[in-house]
Amino acid sequence: MSAGARLSLNTATVRERWNLAQAIDGCARHGVRGIAPWRDKLAELGVTEAARRIRANGLTVTGLCRGGMFPAADAAGRRAAIEDNLRAIDDAAALDAQCLVLVAGGLPPHSRDLAGARGMVADGIAAILGHARAAKVPLAIEPLHPMYAADRACVNTMAQALDLCDLLDPAGRHGELPRQSPDGVPWQPAAALGVALDVYHTWWDPNLQRDVERAGASRLLAFHICDWRVPTRDLLLDRGMMGDGVIDLRLIRSWVESGGYRGLHEVEIFSAADWWQRDPDEVLDIMQQRHERCC
Amino acid sequence: MSAGARLSLNTATVRERWNLAQAIDGCARHGVRGIAPWRDKLAELGVTEAARRIRANGLTVTGLCRGGMFPAADAAGRRAAIEDNLRAIDDAAALDAQCLVLVAGGLPPHSRDLAGARGMVADGIAAILGHARAAKVPLAIEPLHPMYAADRACVNTMAQALDLCDLLDPAGRHGELPRQSPDGVPWQPAAALGVALDVYHTWWDPNLQRDVERAGASRLLAFHICDWRVPTRDLLLDRGMMGDGVIDLRLIRSWVESGGYRGLHEVEIFSAADWWQRDPDEVLDIMQQRHERCC
Repeated sequence: MSAGARLSLNTATVRERWNLAQAIDGCARHGVRGIAPWRDKLAELGVTEAARRIRANGLTVTGLCRGGMFPAADAAGRRAAIEDNLRAIDDAAALDAQCLVLVAGGLPPHSRDLAGARGMVADGIAAILGHARAAKVPLAIEPLHPMYAADRACVNTMAQALDLCDLLDPAGRHGELPRQSPDGVPWQPAAALGVALDVYHTWWDPNLQRDVERAGASRLLAFHICDWRVPTRDLLLDRGMMGDGVIDLRLIRSWVESGGYRGLHEVEIFSAADWWQRDPDEVLDIMQQRHERCC
Repeated sequence: MSAGARLSLNTATVRERWNLAQAIDGCARHGVRGIAPWRDKLAELGVTEAARRIRANGLTVTGLCRGGMFPAADAAGRRAAIEDNLRAIDDAAALDAQCLVLVAGGLPPHSRDLAGARGMVADGIAAILGHARAAKVPLAIEPLHPMYAADRACVNTMAQALDLCDLLDPAGRHGELPRQSPDGVPWQPAAALGVALDVYHTWWDPNLQRDVERAGASRLLAFHICDWRVPTRDLLLDRGMMGDGVIDLRLIRSWVESGGYRGLHEVEIFSAADWWQRDPDEVLDIMQQRHERCC
């Protein structure tokens, strides 16, 4: 198996220098077998053309980034968010994506009502779940680090995301949507609603191992990797390459695999001062070396 | 009751412009009834002189900041941390402090062993608890925001802190150390080991209300307030004054008071670009206005 055979490239990792067509070509050139596009890059290339190129290169789409962002100040805003999510589901279906990643959204403007925002997230997911199920696109709630609770996502732990799964898709532990592992090994069907586990957001969580187990194979829909730098110089744009930080990636990978996850490992690095400045071909080389050495 | 009658000043809030003697005088001048010194400021003035001035002005010491920082790369380092904590307990006793605040400490250098660091914290607290109990100084574990898990504190939620209390001081729910509320209202004795609840670190936690209730009156040893700015421009030094951010301070205060807390509200603001630049007399005025309006 080549170094890239377990890897997927989240396009955020190279977003300053590559458009989606370049990222697809780059993955193919480097033997990286998966890709996770962001919707801005997807819109530039067009969904049909993107799907054609991705298929032509035999890439797995480990997720479409992103839906969610449900809380809004008024009903019209919440409705607009739901409409946008329905379109995202259609795009994810066209790409044959393994999931649509949902970033919950934070507090509406001028609001301090965190419980209210969390209720809006539940309502928003409830409103799109039927469409996702019909389109055979699993929805992956991605808990974001608590430092983003106000402005990006008010779902901040695996436990919280799994409580939403239990509430909105109680039968989901058994899975219902067919899926294929990248290496052909039979894999439990995906739940219609599950979680995307990103080590950056969750590595600190004292209950992480317990909650990975709780998620189980059907609800573990994506596994995102990078590293937590010490010091972290910026709340948003200072993620590290695997091995540059303090996350015990091998340990978390072992939990995820014990939980039954057989998918690719998606590398998502927001790094304004470092990795975004580099030649993406170099980034893909290093990403593969580091994955072998540190994960 | 004056605006400052429920307030305590954590000296970090004015640390760039006032030494401890000035902070004591400032509290007295503004009618702020409590103070929480940091040990660097305390060392400058000397413990005996500090205790004399604090008593002369009738101030309550809501906590001494800080002990903790237990994890270390080797046994000598861990032993040194414990020795330092024993000295801190003596200082807290000399000041008649309502608690010694414990900030757990993060990962030792070059370590990714978060569970190991957490074990060192438990061992460290176990090693000092007897001395604290004998000195009648309650130890207040302060869970820090998960963004500090690597470099400052690997105890990151109230639940985690309370699990440590249950483990190391199982009888603590009933309290054993006498204490007096600032307004003379009878108040449940303090546990030897409890928690310091800082809204900045915990406001995002979906289990906060549950865990405040779990702590109860005997284990709620301190209540720290400030606000979470959006955007937050720096991981460490960009806290907001109450009312400048998104924390529902009234709500959290209601939980804390329902839980039986009768102590002062300690204002702790690390703010390099804003509040540290201002005249501390102005800061104390605004802090009292904001406390009345927003908390």
